[in-house]
Amino acid sequence: MAERLILHEDRRSGNCYKIRLTAALLGIPLARVEYDIIKGETRSAEFLRRINSNGRIPVLQVGDRFLPESNAACFYLADGSPLIPQDRFARADMLRWMFFEQYNHEPNIATLRFWLFYLGEASLSQAQRAQIAGKRIAGESALELMDRHLAGREWFVGDALTLADIVLYAYTHVAEAGGFRLSDHAHVCAWLDRIVRLPRYEPMG
Amino acid sequence: MAERLILHEDRRSGNCYKIRLTAALLGIPLARVEYDIIKGETRSAEFLRRINSNGRIPVLQVGDRFLPESNAACFYLADGSPLIPQDRFARADMLRWMFFEQYNHEPNIATLRFWLFYLGEASLSQAQRAQIAGKRIAGESALELMDRHLAGREWFVGDALTLADIVLYAYTHVAEAGGFRLSDHAHVCAWLDRIVRLPRYEPMG
Repeated sequence: MAERLILHEDRRSGNCYKIRLTAALLGIPLARVEYDIIKGETRSAEFLRRINSNGRIPVLQVGDRFLPESNAACFYLADGSPLIPQDRFARADMLRWMFFEQYNHEPNIATLRFWLFYLGEASLSQAQRAQIAGKRIAGESALELMDRHLAGREWFVGDALTLADIVLYAYTHVAEAGGFRLSDHAHVCAWLDRIVRLPRYEPMG
Repeated sequence: MAERLILHEDRRSGNCYKIRLTAALLGIPLARVEYDIIKGETRSAEFLRRINSNGRIPVLQVGDRFLPESNAACFYLADGSPLIPQDRFARADMLRWMFFEQYNHEPNIATLRFWLFYLGEASLSQAQRAQIAGKRIAGESALELMDRHLAGREWFVGDALTLADIVLYAYTHVAEAGGFRLSDHAHVCAWLDRIVRLPRYEPMG
């Protein structure tokens, strides 16, 4: 990787962590620039103009180019490595779980963690409060689906670690901060343990 | 493509259409099996067991294997074709727009179309109604971001059509059914026209 890599991030964010974990597992050095999303530091005119017009972190800076979207950044880092399967169907199946993560998992499990653990229920809007019950059910369904899938298998795709595991790990392992009970999902817990024991694993933060 | 391809779909769904459009542009034949999502036909025990435990269409069947998640299915079909850039950064940047589509675009623009055009506002739950205003603002932001990105460029990534364009096209071109006004976004309208004029373009339905 010839160009310098800088991760624009908030270290509390699982979306940022998944990029750091991918880089750590691959032994790729990443510089880090920290923002406080709760203080709105990713909505400044400068950030919107230069780094991400969508006002969000993470953004992976590659030389002078900027790559938003956490799972796209993981794909960039892992492209050509064993974290992305060579087989065509398995490669698409890995992406299937990465899209599941952003559609069914993150908007429920990560959002409830952010709302309940970081913002606090008292400071939520009425529209946010009206969504808590739905997000609880949908997040629980995502964990159940993962648990059923992991019954009798070690990793999400094929028989080896891929980006699917890394991106799903990020918000699953801290799901209890959003009020989810991981001990209800034994296969998920065993899979979380496998990830923690990987060589070069790095914790969140 | 040696194995038979079957798309399990509801033809009103943009997520299903994007797979058909990818296949059409690449000249890949797809068999189609139709389900009515409003009647719950993708939640039957048989569907959940055999086709997708997530209870959703589209699912691309490849021989006897099943691939859920629309954008993963598009990637499978286009893998190795010019619809996916060869350049590493451009390939990740294409995925960036595909994740943007599933996170910022579809849950707002497609959901309002489904709620307001297919279900009708009168049949929505209170929790759904509480989200309409937020989804309107977020969907409008997604269209504005796309419009700014397309100012001075023809396609989302590099200077050629990629999957990023196809997957964003699917729900953008029918956004007015969700109450969005496309004529406010001139660059988006010009880009929609470019897609309709592609050789082998096929309309939705």
